[in-house]
Amino acid sequence: MMKNIIDSIWALPRDLVSDGYDQAIDALSDMLPMRIHEYPTGTECFTWIVPEKWTCRDARLETMDGKTLFSYKDNPLHAVSYSLPYSGEVDRETLFQHLHTRPDMPEAIPFIFKYYKRDWGLCCRHSLKQTLTDDTYRVVIDTEFTQGALKVGEVVVKGKKQDCYIFCAHLCHPAQTNDDMAGVAVGMDVFRRLLEGPQPEYTYRLVILPETIGSAAWLSHNESLIPHIKGGLFLEMLGTPHPHALQRSNTPDSQMDTICRLITREADPKMWEDDFMKVILNDERMFNGPGINVPMLSLSRVLQRDDLYDPPYSEYHTSLDTPDVLDWDNLNRSSRLVSRIIEAIEANRIPVPLFKGELFCSRFKSIDYASMFHVMNAVIYRLDGEKSIADIARESGLPYDDVVAFIEILKKEKLVRLA
Amino acid sequence: MMKNIIDSIWALPRDLVSDGYDQAIDALSDMLPMRIHEYPTGTECFTWIVPEKWTCRDARLETMDGKTLFSYKDNPLHAVSYSLPYSGEVDRETLFQHLHTRPDMPEAIPFIFKYYKRDWGLCCRHSLKQTLTDDTYRVVIDTEFTQGALKVGEVVVKGKKQDCYIFCAHLCHPAQTNDDMAGVAVGMDVFRRLLEGPQPEYTYRLVILPETIGSAAWLSHNESLIPHIKGGLFLEMLGTPHPHALQRSNTPDSQMDTICRLITREADPKMWEDDFMKVILNDERMFNGPGINVPMLSLSRVLQRDDLYDPPYSEYHTSLDTPDVLDWDNLNRSSRLVSRIIEAIEANRIPVPLFKGELFCSRFKSIDYASMFHVMNAVIYRLDGEKSIADIARESGLPYDDVVAFIEILKKEKLVRLA
Amino acid sequence: MMKNIIDSIWALPRDLVSDGYDQAIDALSDMLPMRIHEYPTGTECFTWIVPEKWTCRDARLETMDGKTLFSYKDNPLHAVSYSLPYSGEVDRETLFQHLHTRPDMPEAIPFIFKYYKRDWGLCCRHSLKQTLTDDTYRVVIDTEFTQGALKVGEVVVKGKKQDCYIFCAHLCHPAQTNDDMAGVAVGMDVFRRLLEGPQPEYTYRLVILPETIGSAAWLSHNESLIPHIKGGLFLEMLGTPHPHALQRSNTPDSQMDTICRLITREADPKMWEDDFMKVILNDERMFNGPGINVPMLSLSRVLQRDDLYDPPYSEYHTSLDTPDVLDWDNLNRSSRLVSRIIEAIEANRIPVPLFKGELFCSRFKSIDYASMFHVMNAVIYRLDGEKSIADIARESGLPYDDVVAFIEILKKEKLVRLA
Repeated sequence: MMKNIIDSIWALPRDLVSDGYDQAIDALSDMLPMRIHEYPTGTECFTWIVPEKWTCRDARLETMDGKTLFSYKDNPLHAVSYSLPYSGEVDRETLFQHLHTRPDMPEAIPFIFKYYKRDWGLCCRHSLKQTLTDDTYRVVIDTEFTQGALKVGEVVVKGKKQDCYIFCAHLCHPAQTNDDMAGVAVGMDVFRRLLEGPQPEYTYRLVILPETIGSAAWLSHNESLIPHIKGGLFLEMLGTPHPHALQRSNTPDSQMDTICRLITREADPKMWEDDFMKVILNDERMFNGPGINVPMLSLSRVLQRDDLYDPPYSEYHTSLDTPDVLDWDNLNRSSRLVSRIIEAIEANRIPVPLFKGELFCSRFKSIDYASMFHVMNAVIYRLDGEKSIADIARESGLPYDDVVAFIEILKKEKLVRLA
Repeated sequence: MMKNIIDSIWALPRDLVSDGYDQAIDALSDMLPMRIHEYPTGTECFTWIVPEKWTCRDARLETMDGKTLFSYKDNPLHAVSYSLPYSGEVDRETLFQHLHTRPDMPEAIPFIFKYYKRDWGLCCRHSLKQTLTDDTYRVVIDTEFTQGALKVGEVVVKGKKQDCYIFCAHLCHPAQTNDDMAGVAVGMDVFRRLLEGPQPEYTYRLVILPETIGSAAWLSHNESLIPHIKGGLFLEMLGTPHPHALQRSNTPDSQMDTICRLITREADPKMWEDDFMKVILNDERMFNGPGINVPMLSLSRVLQRDDLYDPPYSEYHTSLDTPDVLDWDNLNRSSRLVSRIIEAIEANRIPVPLFKGELFCSRFKSIDYASMFHVMNAVIYRLDGEKSIADIARESGLPYDDVVAFIEILKKEKLVRLA
Repeated sequence: MMKNIIDSIWALPRDLVSDGYDQAIDALSDMLPMRIHEYPTGTECFTWIVPEKWTCRDARLETMDGKTLFSYKDNPLHAVSYSLPYSGEVDRETLFQHLHTRPDMPEAIPFIFKYYKRDWGLCCRHSLKQTLTDDTYRVVIDTEFTQGALKVGEVVVKGKKQDCYIFCAHLCHPAQTNDDMAGVAVGMDVFRRLLEGPQPEYTYRLVILPETIGSAAWLSHNESLIPHIKGGLFLEMLGTPHPHALQRSNTPDSQMDTICRLITREADPKMWEDDFMKVILNDERMFNGPGINVPMLSLSRVLQRDDLYDPPYSEYHTSLDTPDVLDWDNLNRSSRLVSRIIEAIEANRIPVPLFKGELFCSRFKSIDYASMFHVMNAVIYRLDGEKSIADIARESGLPYDDVVAFIEILKKEKLVRLA
């Protein structure tokens, strides 16, 4: 499913509010049952406002004798996203003020956006720019700003409880793959499996949206849900060749933080983690923000770097971020990891002891003293009716599943109940 | 008193429920006022069940021509405790499956028990086993399982308050001394002194019992006492040549933990300590268990070792653990230390200040500013009506008795009251 | 103002209750609006009692042939403060038992006081003592103990709130300067500026008093004020050449502690700090004492030293502690620092967010995303309606004023209210 998703929609010009974005969300909604929320241009979303729909028919640079040097039709990155329209002759100096390149990556077209501070602009390979020696060029940027609607796709897996967990990825960023088709594909893959399974305890929501404004739109129109959101995970850049990077939430003692940290560490011993806002910035900022306070972590495969604003992987925000560079094995591993996190959430309960003192193991058929001695001692002296399974796993250092399995045995023997 | 106790009962075959055990507890009850609780075979004790009484009339190995190679009558350790009866000729291979030795200690008979997973078995010196070259031997194990009663001896020193502290040692383990005649002797010695003194503030209980099942039996039949048990200390292996080892309780911030740690450190600068379940395992597990939660520490003189299951001292669980290897000075030092702990419990109160601000020392006859300056400053700024004397000693690093003495002066001068 | 204060009153014989002290407090009350509290000899003040007024008309040493070797009239330090009267011939041995010098500082007259354990005594340069080879000398100590009144000067700057902060310095110690004319001068200078400014939010009180007994007197007669005193700062020895030394209060998590630590560190990167009672001892002990519990810190410029009782600066408690050794630049810097602390107290509020989620910066004129990105991210995710500005500055490591300024912007944009 992940390959299908990425191959079919990665190349679309998926700007914030745009036909390309709509095409992509429609394609996704054909694959899983998905509700599509629409928020018209101008809608107030907390402090944010939904922008206009942006349509780019063409954006090209021509020589004065009519030769096209590059065009949006070849790659949507040639236009600055949300560029103002512009047509006319410009001298080279003016052109260069509006022509964006990456001198450090001469063969890459950079991804540049001007959503709110508007200007006209083009992007191209730096190697091409260096051949531009004429005094004058012709610029044609045929864009349009119109009333439109921002779209958020939501896949809901209804659980026995109203309390829910949110998984989130962004669908914007034209013609790029790891950022964040990778997160979208992993989220879809995980929810496909979740939909195929039995009804879960908790409700799970996958929200696919344009970055930041999408979260503001969805949250501000679902405020009654917020008290029920017990945790969240932002998914992004999961197809790089790097180990997992886990960014803790703004309330790092949450159960969601504990579970994500334990399971990611078990699944990927090379993973690294850091505090909120120290790994990579995305919609988790909206969810963790004042008045919302959802403990949303971020799972990615970005590089550890001294400056947060250094590129998180080498093709970041350029035309080189294509399916060709995707590490499909890593993508699959991340998908399985996220499913493991959901399993751990499902299994996380507070065991309340129904017995007193040390256990007389010989009496209970399912307890084998010799082989379970270590896990038993690590677990039973932490049964205080307050610590969760995740807390016990964290404190004891035992594998999560070992704690779950032993609690299951205690439950079968009627030695604990699960609160 | 300790020498008398150990000399008179160490050699008895003190199996869990047995005539030898009963003889031992009767001997102890002649030395101090002691109530003996009896729990018949089959009694439910939390998840535990009191086992049958075990009687061993003989257990010997003979050559086919009738020569006795070893016999229970020489040393009760020659029989596996709770061995099934067995009589007959066995080939060497079968014999060796049931004959326990310690190859690393060729002159020691090991102590082996099969209380709940039953089988027949003998134990002997490894050096003797190595001489067994015949093809066939005769085994005679004349044991019997009958209805009996597990016995717990309890010495109570009634204080002014119902709140109580438990001191505990186990009397089982045939013909062994440090494990745990040593703890029994120290407990008896301490309670003898306590009974001779004035009525204490708190109630103190010494419980002498067969390991683990004894605690389950006593606690499950005294559940109404549990909320009044403010702390406990398990006593064991106190006659080895090693420094004290203190194992914290499962609630290591308790007042009992604080007091035991402070006083043991003061009395034995070479002591070492570690977390609950990291030093040595005994009945403190029952007391600290779910639904009971008594902060019981363990005081011993075991070796610090990488693997908790390495022997805690060299003669552990063998026939070499006799009074000959006891360090009587250490036993006496431990006895005095436990009495010091009780004194510290008695003195531990919450001082509530009856004055305001810095003290005008010149006004109070009992306060000598020059000599008391240091202790005064360390104490009076911690008087908040919440911190106990133990808390103040811990925070300030002052000797416990210095804090007690200064609080006594403040009380005499009506500058504090004790809550 | 500071120079004027010090020059005019440093040389006065400012003993605890004395004409010299009264002269000094009268001089100060001419400079700022000051209420003078009087507590007659014998008044009970918590555990303390106001001592008698002490008058010294002369205290001199004469040779038997009538030559004056030194006299109180040359320097009030020649008399032990609160010396008993004495007149008569003494042999050299007796004299030497009552004649105090500093062998390590042969040209300094030491400051010696016997407020409560009384005796007669003289002080002189050690170099002079070494010339005293006669067998007999004549001592004349013409002192008198009478009913008097201890005086505390209080400057109040009434704020909008009853809650108040105390600044404190002591005026006693005859003919000395850094200890603590320096603190008095800084306090007066700070309060002069405060009186010139607009009405503050909080009420501020400067109390100038004789050490320790002055605090006992003032506090015990203003007990209803105590619950409103949110913090305090003792000022002392601020004219030495050393960096600032900040002594935390006995409740080091207080807002007053947080503010003083942040602002002092920002103003004086060479500052050092330590726990309550670890830097220098003064009236902050009375304020932090049991039943009062005002978080009063101490700001000085004393040396860091292994033994708290080593001299905090070289001229301490001697006749060398004169205006000649004052570092006026340091005194001015300290005065400005204390004013900065007051500004920080004034600005310290709890911001309550009125928005949800991440901010849409482009919408708010006063927020410039590019330049404010760092401070914004550090601040907004800490807005939980519980953390104060001081807490946010401490946690984030941002300069205090940057947090204040950004909160001000949020307030202007109606994005927070201040609780």
